[in-house]
Amino acid sequence: MPISDENPADHLTSSQCWTYVRQAKFGRLAVIVDGHPEIFPINFAVDHGTVVFRTAAGTKLAGALSGNPVAFEIDGYDDTLSSAWSVVLKGGATLLDDFSEIMDSEELALFPWQSGTRNAFVRIEPEVTTGRRFLISNAARRNVLRGMGLYTE
Amino acid sequence: MPISDENPADHLTSSQCWTYVRQAKFGRLAVIVDGHPEIFPINFAVDHGTVVFRTAAGTKLAGALSGNPVAFEIDGYDDTLSSAWSVVLKGGATLLDDFSEIMDSEELALFPWQSGTRNAFVRIEPEVTTGRRFLISNAARRNVLRGMGLYTE
Repeated sequence: MPISDENPADHLTSSQCWTYVRQAKFGRLAVIVDGHPEIFPINFAVDHGTVVFRTAAGTKLAGALSGNPVAFEIDGYDDTLSSAWSVVLKGGATLLDDFSEIMDSEELALFPWQSGTRNAFVRIEPEVTTGRRFLISNAARRNVLRGMGLYTE
Repeated sequence: MPISDENPADHLTSSQCWTYVRQAKFGRLAVIVDGHPEIFPINFAVDHGTVVFRTAAGTKLAGALSGNPVAFEIDGYDDTLSSAWSVVLKGGATLLDDFSEIMDSEELALFPWQSGTRNAFVRIEPEVTTGRRFLISNAARRNVLRGMGLYTE
């Protein structure tokens, strides 16, 4: 997603950010574990302005519930590949102990990432929402298309 | 990138991880700033088993050089969209003050992300390299193709 010099990044409004978040199914969670950052890819769902994901006991769960804020990021390309965008949500994470709270939402078709028990649901309540959009140079666009197997030279 | 229950995640070897890292141009950096995690999308280059990125002064640079380890993540889909993968590198980050150290590497065609001065180069020296590959369910594959505008029903 390299950006050409002539095209500075645009800041997205909160509304624009949430449009991207609602369309995405997959993002990256950053948590602090023992004083260092960890990143996990997660499937997620949007529920009333919060992000919910499902996980089993482990580093991801312990890190998310450590009491420190977490950060959650999604990114992608627009359809025309003329721009790329990135949205970051930051806030606290809490364990959901009322399972019905989740099941009420039709949005929350959360696939498990791997086999095994994934019986914890965690909710991220964003306090800060930031997003940026970048125009993409022609050279970078060719790299993206190459990565998708759609461009050869 | 949801994963079906029948298909547990495969752990990637270090060699497999680095094959993905060398093919990627873009990833996400997680750093700790004031006790909370931050995530930044970055362009990067591989240089002799390290990851190098370019940045200006700011939160990203300060966080990377805070003395805490950093985490760096890339992910993607295989060509057939039958599997997804994620690689995380963790280690320390240092500021490069010898510019020629960078310019020696033909790999390091680092595009700036936005206009303005981007005169700091930071090197991540991974101490831990982990990667996972996930088989993707048919339902998830349709979601991916929809996201790319290649699938309608």
